[in-house]
Amino acid sequence: MSEIDRMLVANEAWAERFPGSRSVRPARAVAVVACMDSRMPLFQMLGLEVGDAHVIRNAGGVITEDTVRSLTISQHLLGTREIMLVHHTECGLQATDDLSFADLVERATGRRPPWAARAFTDADDDVRESMRLLRESPYLLSHAVRGAVYDVATGRLREVI
Amino acid sequence: MSEIDRMLVANEAWAERFPGSRSVRPARAVAVVACMDSRMPLFQMLGLEVGDAHVIRNAGGVITEDTVRSLTISQHLLGTREIMLVHHTECGLQATDDLSFADLVERATGRRPPWAARAFTDADDDVRESMRLLRESPYLLSHAVRGAVYDVATGRLREVI
Repeated sequence: MSEIDRMLVANEAWAERFPGSRSVRPARAVAVVACMDSRMPLFQMLGLEVGDAHVIRNAGGVITEDTVRSLTISQHLLGTREIMLVHHTECGLQATDDLSFADLVERATGRRPPWAARAFTDADDDVRESMRLLRESPYLLSHAVRGAVYDVATGRLREVI
Repeated sequence: MSEIDRMLVANEAWAERFPGSRSVRPARAVAVVACMDSRMPLFQMLGLEVGDAHVIRNAGGVITEDTVRSLTISQHLLGTREIMLVHHTECGLQATDDLSFADLVERATGRRPPWAARAFTDADDDVRESMRLLRESPYLLSHAVRGAVYDVATGRLREVI
């Protein structure tokens, strides 16, 4: 059975205990931007219930045009007003750099990506840079952003000031 | 207390029941691409455990340059080989169109976004278009992609063929 078949089977158990429908507008008016890392079950980690918060995730939890697009829709169409950034320790993007990654992809596929991997070295610095980028975005209605680093060895979040 | 302070408090309870550290490489070698919608707790909905799968989310769960960047990192650096797309019923992006959304942002902020909202009308069609885009991506090592639509009124996933 493929992994995706396993997910479809597991979904039947979820539907049995489904808590019911909720508004499309997040109840707590908050959007979370986080890394795609498999070790971060954000709803459980942050105490979120179904319907509470938008969740935006990409490699690194970095701010890209797509992150800004998603947050702009979240705020203008669906009423969110706070943003929480979640980066983490031991990120895959700390184990490479943009040039090495482009070389790796080119060797494996014959095509060099025109976009950067967005590797980084220090998680705290990357959270601060992400906060700065969002505070400067002209498209957002609210620039109330805070950020934290999740320790994948302990499950604890530490706010970055 | 701000919503973000509430999350930091809730995280203390998670850390108490934290299941322990896991590898940075997803155990089930799969990446999920889904909409940011607040009604989709993906780990619970899909039966995922900590460490199982990468989770990439944006407004609509659509394929953008950032989605491809994230999936390329997921496959080349961290070994995933299957992709699962999760769109859903009653999406906020079905309640607007790209022109109306750009007008809305311009009226509210004085700035017209240079990027499109990526609104769509039919979730099944958008899943099929997303599968097509990923199958054509020259940067991925595996094009094993399947997609589903989640019913936010029942909690059930339905695969799109």
